Amino acid sequence: MKRGRFITLEGVDGAGKSTSLEAIRRFLEGRGVEVVVTREPGGTPFAEKVRDLLLGAHEEAVDPVAETLLLFAARAQHVGAVIEPALARGRWVVSDRFTDATRAYQGGGRGVDGQAIEGLARLVHPGLEPDLTFYLDLPVDQARRRIAGVGERAAADLDRFERERASFHERVRAAYRTLAQSSERVRTIDASLPEDEVARGIVAMLGDFVDEHG
Amino acid sequence: MKRGRFITLEGVDGAGKSTSLEAIRRFLEGRGVEVVVTREPGGTPFAEKVRDLLLGAHEEAVDPVAETLLLFAARAQHVGAVIEPALARGRWVVSDRFTDATRAYQGGGRGVDGQAIEGLARLVHPGLEPDLTFYLDLPVDQARRRIAGVGERAAADLDRFERERASFHERVRAAYRTLAQSSERVRTIDASLPEDEVARGIVAMLGDFVDEHG
Repeated sequence: MKRGRFITLEGVDGAGKSTSLEAIRRFLEGRGVEVVVTREPGGTPFAEKVRDLLLGAHEEAVDPVAETLLLFAARAQHVGAVIEPALARGRWVVSDRFTDATRAYQGGGRGVDGQAIEGLARLVHPGLEPDLTFYLDLPVDQARRRIAGVGERAAADLDRFERERASFHERVRAAYRTLAQSSERVRTIDASLPEDEVARGIVAMLGDFVDEHG
Repeated sequence: MKRGRFITLEGVDGAGKSTSLEAIRRFLEGRGVEVVVTREPGGTPFAEKVRDLLLGAHEEAVDPVAETLLLFAARAQHVGAVIEPALARGRWVVSDRFTDATRAYQGGGRGVDGQAIEGLARLVHPGLEPDLTFYLDLPVDQARRRIAGVGERAAADLDRFERERASFHERVRAAYRTLAQSSERVRTIDASLPEDEVARGIVAMLGDFVDEHG
């Protein structure tokens, strides 16, 4: 059984990842590929409970290293229970976020040591990195307008990351852009375009990837 | 302000840690020492939520590395919000379990790589180890009889670790004993004695420690 491919979508909330995920699924299934669509943090019932802790409001400030360890705890469960078994069965796994998000949010946004993050990545998913990553790049003010606009969400509905100030999100974006420039597997997508145009661009790139590596 | 001392109690459930913790608190307060008594996993509201995840029942098997990372996430929060600030203010911190428990339960019991555990310890509490540790040693069958006897607890009330089979608890005990033999800060206590006798023995050793290092 040929091992499946691992594809990730990265980017801030509001960048239109959901629409693109659906387009990727439809495209791959149209090519006869069995697809598992999943997300981080989460992807298993236990990891989703860790997600609730990470995104929920708390009466105390959460330590950035604690936050990073919780993310990798959820990831260890997700990799072991979902991602690796699916890849081994020849399925393609498409995940809404993976370790690049930790590099951007906790490394860039919170200032957690990059070496520590890479050490945790080696512990939790040795030898596993995405084969292809789409980074949906969007200026921070546009992302915030889109999030605020979704069903006129009240501020109380925002999660612990969405509530962070603009300077945090600027650092996250800068980290994502640096990562995208330094890594060949990461394709940067201009997410300020209409969502269906973004999705079409991604599917076109994915088609080339499937033709080459599928 | 002279930095406080950090004292930990280790050992399996049923070894009588609670009685000894109370005796330690009374003894230190009698010597005019301000004491913070705390526990792991937990010690802050957020870390207690992680504790609930760790001890609760789940529909899936929890990955041992995920479990280890959750413990260190709770510990990062506990060290940053409780232990370090208290020590810096000159208080003595007495904790029911710390990283030795991870070395015994996850390293010994689950087989998680010891180097990985030490790497996480360096990340989460660089330069911080207990000044003194009491390891309450008890044969596994005695510990299990004591746990089962408490208020005639039903099997359904046991936490995720208490439900583990005897062979798991034998590995935990073996790891604790090896640790105690190789570390000068760890004093092994025979916890098969009556609880008040155990507590008296601990307080006597603690008295010597206070006279020397207090």
